[in-house]
Amino acid sequence: MKQQVFYGKGMPIVKKENPELYDAIVGLNDAVFNGKVLDYKTQKLIAIAITAASGDKRGTFRQMYSGMDHLGITYDEIMDALNMVLLTAGMPPFVKAVRTLDKVKKEMESDKKENK
Amino acid sequence: MKQQVFYGKGMPIVKKENPELYDAIVGLNDAVFNGKVLDYKTQKLIAIAITAASGDKRGTFRQMYSGMDHLGITYDEIMDALNMVLLTAGMPPFVKAVRTLDKVKKEMESDKKENK
Amino acid sequence: MKQQVFYGKGMPIVKKENPELYDAIVGLNDAVFNGKVLDYKTQKLIAIAITAASGDKRGTFRQMYSGMDHLGITYDEIMDALNMVLLTAGMPPFVKAVRTLDKVKKEMESDKKENK
Amino acid sequence: MKQQVFYGKGMPIVKKENPELYDAIVGLNDAVFNGKVLDYKTQKLIAIAITAASGDKRGTFRQMYSGMDHLGITYDEIMDALNMVLLTAGMPPFVKAVRTLDKVKKEMESDKKENK
Amino acid sequence: MKQQVFYGKGMPIVKKENPELYDAIVGLNDAVFNGKVLDYKTQKLIAIAITAASGDKRGTFRQMYSGMDHLGITYDEIMDALNMVLLTAGMPPFVKAVRTLDKVKKEMESDKKENK
Amino acid sequence: MKQQVFYGKGMPIVKKENPELYDAIVGLNDAVFNGKVLDYKTQKLIAIAITAASGDKRGTFRQMYSGMDHLGITYDEIMDALNMVLLTAGMPPFVKAVRTLDKVKKEMESDKKENK
Repeated sequence: MKQQVFYGKGMPIVKKENPELYDAIVGLNDAVFNGKVLDYKTQKLIAIAITAASGDKRGTFRQMYSGMDHLGITYDEIMDALNMVLLTAGMPPFVKAVRTLDKVKKEMESDKKENK
Repeated sequence: MKQQVFYGKGMPIVKKENPELYDAIVGLNDAVFNGKVLDYKTQKLIAIAITAASGDKRGTFRQMYSGMDHLGITYDEIMDALNMVLLTAGMPPFVKAVRTLDKVKKEMESDKKENK
Repeated sequence: MKQQVFYGKGMPIVKKENPELYDAIVGLNDAVFNGKVLDYKTQKLIAIAITAASGDKRGTFRQMYSGMDHLGITYDEIMDALNMVLLTAGMPPFVKAVRTLDKVKKEMESDKKENK
Repeated sequence: MKQQVFYGKGMPIVKKENPELYDAIVGLNDAVFNGKVLDYKTQKLIAIAITAASGDKRGTFRQMYSGMDHLGITYDEIMDALNMVLLTAGMPPFVKAVRTLDKVKKEMESDKKENK
Repeated sequence: MKQQVFYGKGMPIVKKENPELYDAIVGLNDAVFNGKVLDYKTQKLIAIAITAASGDKRGTFRQMYSGMDHLGITYDEIMDALNMVLLTAGMPPFVKAVRTLDKVKKEMESDKKENK
Repeated sequence: MKQQVFYGKGMPIVKKENPELYDAIVGLNDAVFNGKVLDYKTQKLIAIAITAASGDKRGTFRQMYSGMDHLGITYDEIMDALNMVLLTAGMPPFVKAVRTLDKVKKEMESDKKENK
């Protein structure tokens, strides 16, 4: 599991404070993403959409970034997924997520320039 | 839009009470499902997952049923999608959704027998 | 406070188990509904809409019933309030609330016939 | 629809990326605010309250600002509406919304000074 | 893990459909309840309160029942925990949870009579 | 009630704008924390966990800080409580709360140095 990627600064704290819980989370993460029929990318898109629907800006940012950066999920794919957020969770989380997606796009472009 | 399918008994009431709002909802529904890159089935899976994450049993049932019955979404695909509910929304909505999926499966089998 | 009306069977249990908490709830209820500028009816409509947005079917039923029965809130007023649920919380809680409103209407008509 | 006002930076992105979805959202927005019996102001107050109950700070700020600035909703009216947030969604979103309302008030005063 | 006890009919389905995920959930469950300083009972009380705050009636019922039946959590302890639900999540989930607690109490008494 | 401690800048505004509501909130706060069997510390831990499960970063920070600073709740006790957030509300609010707890710890250490 690339938890630094997916969950950010919280996971190293868990690893230090409670290694057994950390291992269990890694185990769960591996199991849930080991889908029978859906590929990793589609599952990740679903995770992005659920997090966006909950209105969690930072979690959504991180999931979008890792999905685009590591799994090759595209801007348009996330946008299509956010349409479902609009339908099932209303305007406020949708608009927030669209804005977050835009920030992710800009930060990725900026990060790539720096790494050249 | 097959809103009877997707939203059940509420939509005919809206159609009768407020035809303009009904038309606007149909318009929105068409627009959100008209994805640039994701197909209808994937978008529907995402809608199912968000609804399941919110813990809405009846809405989840209806979306699962219509997704399986009309779009050919499979039991295993939904199960893989529900894994994301477990990860991002915790055990209670996940377990509830697994049970709901089981009920959908049984009701579909029962409906098919009756229609023979 | 007519908490039997507003909150149903839970409140008598609180009254019996913890009279001090019960009194504090009555005090809070009186204070929140004692608006400076909004009238009771408008505040109640807002409470109905928030509860509907949360997807709580039973709580919504109860609040709609008491609002219509005791405060003279009309079916159309609630329907207009539910439009905001659609916009800010999405289709599933909206459709659920429309259906709930319909049930309230039918139960009120049925209750009135019985009481003649 | 004055979506810049209501939804901020997200809507221009939607307009650019998906004009059909944008039009559908405008259509929905017009339809939901075209209440049969409730006026625009009351509907807006309800939308503010639902958004505040969901704990969405930025969305609440924006809705309060546009409601006060464009529709003449007063500080006291919003405060009375927030009482319902306390009752139906608890202390944390209530206190957060009270603080947000205070910020809106201060920003409006500051904006007016600048525009003199 | 006594997942039949804690999560009901959903878990056997997971076990059958996806044994690896099932094992990961058992591992996570063991890890989260293996607190450094809080005992099992206190952790369970916290889980009951979070579930009650989310308004999930069935999940709350099941958690209350297993907590009282297997861990010796008392009616009064849960009632004190529900006070926090009132404060942090508002009246509707609080009243719903009080009613649920009452049902659990009655069902436990009824189950005990039958088992004599 | 030490509401400045528990609820921050919002409460003085309520006190100024609506003293009766303020008194009712103080009354409710006193009543809910006056548990029959659970001590203040355990109830506070439960309130922290519910707030963390809702994803409210600032509210969680404030409750953690006051719980640690005034009631002597320890870092490890909160960590054990957060395990329940993971189980019942999923990874995103759990990771967010772990990070928030870390910030509280650091701010408390920093505050203590300054006060020496």
